[in-house]
Amino acid sequence: MKITGEMLIGASAVRGQDAVLQAIDPATGATLGPDFHGGGAAEVDRACVLAEQAFDPFRNTLPEQRAAFLERIADGIEALGDTLIERAHRESGLPLARLQGERGRTANQLRLFARVLRDGRWQQATWDSALPERTPPRPDLRMQNIALGPVAVFGASNFPLAFSVAGGDTASALAAGCPVVAKSHPAHLGTSELVGRVIQQAVADAGLPEGVFSLVLGAGNEIGTALVAHPAIQAVGFTGSRGGGLALTRVAQQRPQPIPVYAEMSSINPVFLMPAALAARGERIAAELIDSLVMGVGQFCTNPGLVIAIDSPALAAFRAAAVQALGGKPAGTMLTPGIHQAYQQGVARLGEINGLQRIGTGLAGTGPNQACAAMFETSAAQFIADHRMQAEVFGPSSVLVTCRDIDEMTALTRSLEGQLTATVHADAGDHAAARQLLPVLERKAGRVLFNGYPTGVEVSYAMVHGGPFPATSDARTTSVGAAAIARFLRPVCYQNVPGELLPPALRDDNPLGLWRLRDGELTRA
Amino acid sequence: MKITGEMLIGASAVRGQDAVLQAIDPATGATLGPDFHGGGAAEVDRACVLAEQAFDPFRNTLPEQRAAFLERIADGIEALGDTLIERAHRESGLPLARLQGERGRTANQLRLFARVLRDGRWQQATWDSALPERTPPRPDLRMQNIALGPVAVFGASNFPLAFSVAGGDTASALAAGCPVVAKSHPAHLGTSELVGRVIQQAVADAGLPEGVFSLVLGAGNEIGTALVAHPAIQAVGFTGSRGGGLALTRVAQQRPQPIPVYAEMSSINPVFLMPAALAARGERIAAELIDSLVMGVGQFCTNPGLVIAIDSPALAAFRAAAVQALGGKPAGTMLTPGIHQAYQQGVARLGEINGLQRIGTGLAGTGPNQACAAMFETSAAQFIADHRMQAEVFGPSSVLVTCRDIDEMTALTRSLEGQLTATVHADAGDHAAARQLLPVLERKAGRVLFNGYPTGVEVSYAMVHGGPFPATSDARTTSVGAAAIARFLRPVCYQNVPGELLPPALRDDNPLGLWRLRDGELTRA
Repeated sequence: MKITGEMLIGASAVRGQDAVLQAIDPATGATLGPDFHGGGAAEVDRACVLAEQAFDPFRNTLPEQRAAFLERIADGIEALGDTLIERAHRESGLPLARLQGERGRTANQLRLFARVLRDGRWQQATWDSALPERTPPRPDLRMQNIALGPVAVFGASNFPLAFSVAGGDTASALAAGCPVVAKSHPAHLGTSELVGRVIQQAVADAGLPEGVFSLVLGAGNEIGTALVAHPAIQAVGFTGSRGGGLALTRVAQQRPQPIPVYAEMSSINPVFLMPAALAARGERIAAELIDSLVMGVGQFCTNPGLVIAIDSPALAAFRAAAVQALGGKPAGTMLTPGIHQAYQQGVARLGEINGLQRIGTGLAGTGPNQACAAMFETSAAQFIADHRMQAEVFGPSSVLVTCRDIDEMTALTRSLEGQLTATVHADAGDHAAARQLLPVLERKAGRVLFNGYPTGVEVSYAMVHGGPFPATSDARTTSVGAAAIARFLRPVCYQNVPGELLPPALRDDNPLGLWRLRDGELTRA
Repeated sequence: MKITGEMLIGASAVRGQDAVLQAIDPATGATLGPDFHGGGAAEVDRACVLAEQAFDPFRNTLPEQRAAFLERIADGIEALGDTLIERAHRESGLPLARLQGERGRTANQLRLFARVLRDGRWQQATWDSALPERTPPRPDLRMQNIALGPVAVFGASNFPLAFSVAGGDTASALAAGCPVVAKSHPAHLGTSELVGRVIQQAVADAGLPEGVFSLVLGAGNEIGTALVAHPAIQAVGFTGSRGGGLALTRVAQQRPQPIPVYAEMSSINPVFLMPAALAARGERIAAELIDSLVMGVGQFCTNPGLVIAIDSPALAAFRAAAVQALGGKPAGTMLTPGIHQAYQQGVARLGEINGLQRIGTGLAGTGPNQACAAMFETSAAQFIADHRMQAEVFGPSSVLVTCRDIDEMTALTRSLEGQLTATVHADAGDHAAARQLLPVLERKAGRVLFNGYPTGVEVSYAMVHGGPFPATSDARTTSVGAAAIARFLRPVCYQNVPGELLPPALRDDNPLGLWRLRDGELTRA
């Protein structure tokens, strides 16, 4: 498959007239061909009008048809083979093995939503029987979830496959029955086009209306703003910076008809080290934590940017081991020159804060856009007093905070902003303290994990990749895992609707074989 | 129980210092004692701090404890007997029988959420087993819903019991485990206090922390703004005007940490009359529709303010019957002087619109605050061209729109704003046309009903009292029925959390006996 630099508007490939963008190899700083021709509001409008036209037929396909469509996309992505992996590698600087793994995750994610569609619980089919003898009589009431409408998807820089054009937002929106208009991430324009063409082909092969998928690209913020402001768009999926997410949220709120924005934005993912765990295995935790910190050059939403420990002799040993491990970690190429620059500035800002000392540094880089890991240290009192210490620095930088005791640790935790994850290292002797901390962690994070590391997000039924603001713009949801489909659904009640006009999920004879809530009881009959 | 005019802040009764408010009998215009002493930001802060303190212990009560607490409130409201009904009658002008029915609905609603709590599906307990042999290994992942945090509740003028202090928002928030700070509606201050005291007593009797419930009151918008802006508040339930809902939504969005607002605002509830149904039973529909229009002096969110019909001889007969029925309908006392004035102005505004003719009028009123019903008429083309014709006029006013055919009816429907309900009168001969209309109705309304009338909202599992903007601020939810609890919940994932630290819903031995999603399959084991 050839990369042409065009946008994909429905079934067409369209050469934009508004700007020329170029992909950059962050490892060399070189530009990668071809030129990408960006569009503007006109192309956004065309894509959104097609999406609107596709919406009713697409949402009314049977779940099985959409399941097969998602599997077709997964197959198509795998069939791109090395073409995709090599392009993504050159555009992102991410290692080939990591990208192969991410491709597998992307395909698995599409296949998970195919299973979710076949299973059918997402429809939440509910049926309260008529009670004609009651005073007043109760009508026949049936409820199902339906698709919200066309969805705008803004992918992440750091997952060019799993959180981009065919990533979790697209997969869950398509599963729900929502057409998708995606915007190419400027950090991986060619990868976006390759994957976009796979989806475009899958739409055609499945005989779906062309507006089910479009891919636009453009310079600056205008195209994204136009997309979120377009009246056809009914929800937004976004993964990126806090500033970007808040800007799109404002656009969405200021529309004549406001729409929901699911923005996954900013998290420093505190890791709590309890005394017994530190005493038993502090040095191993240090080594593993530093591995987690520098993995992927720290470019994960779940990167452990904050380590909070209770003071003890074992903490000193942990600290020494962590600083030593960090010192041996090579620098790594970041995703883009912009991300590298922001990391350098973020580390410099932390270095200027009174009361925050730099205690560890990774090996210096040799090429362009290489980030060198950094570790800082402060006390709980100083951390609580200075909000700047909890600003996310995207990359391999972390702050170690020492607390006097569990009460100070709990107070510090209460002062934290919302997080995607909170990690606790605790042995049996720490459980009393952990029990005190847990209710606070539940309120601060979407995922609480024990004796592990926050990087690595499983795509499954029980996953929550979400959390209170500013981790996301909507703590009631997750952007990873089966429950992500709920973001793009809304319930509709059908009262005394004649049987032949009822949707399949709600017909008397349950033709989809769904689990349904019948008069308050779950049944598959 | 005596009405004192105090606020209820936790376990205390507090006399506000900021303003004196009075309850008014709309049937006479007379003020009703006692004086109500409104507070301001200081009382809001006290109530919210108590709510925050109560949150962790309250959300961690067992579901059975909260179920019993809700039942205690229901019992307490019933035990108020005629004291409550008579006060509500004098404050609202609503008939005694209607208020007795509404009391039953309020108690049933609390008891429904008790059943929802015992059933436990609201927790959506999910468990993905560890796969230690997989590469990479999968951790043990479990998910449950937890409460969002303290909730601010703003009741409706038109349901002083079922949508006010102990109404659907409060019942679902308390069920979720969220403390509630309610604001007394100025249209029924005494009723609010009576019900508030029942909840306050139930909190004490159940041994719950006092901050689980507070009731504040005040003049103007300041107290509501302070409540929504308070950092302890994590969600808002509101039923009322579009202006009010949008104002609170803006406050919520501009907080340092934005929070969700569930505002039920504005709907004109279109009723579609299909030719075969009109031919078969047009005069009966006319009589029933006019009954629905004037019931409760038209003061329902689901009042049929728009009637859309396809032109036919039967339509002329329907129209004549409707106008005649309307002409015999007595005027009724509206809830407040302000609502009466707004109705008069709304009807006058409709009367001034070119292309909209007044065709029917109810009997003139004789007392203060009495509303006389009104019916207007226009064509589909004129209706589509002039957006002012679809502004909600709260009260017994409706617009009849004539369409040439089903295509024009469909086009008109596409031009509508979001609605709580859409009603279709259709016989078998209309089903082809209805099939064309249904996908449009699904996108416009939260509830689609056939051969009935939109007034009358069942409190059950399948009910959706919600809908696209501006019917509500969040089309993904309902404010009536069992699913309303989801508004006040968020998911949390627990990864490799030691068994003794897991919440009851997620323990290996399933002590709550919940239906859980285990590795993708529903099971109660």
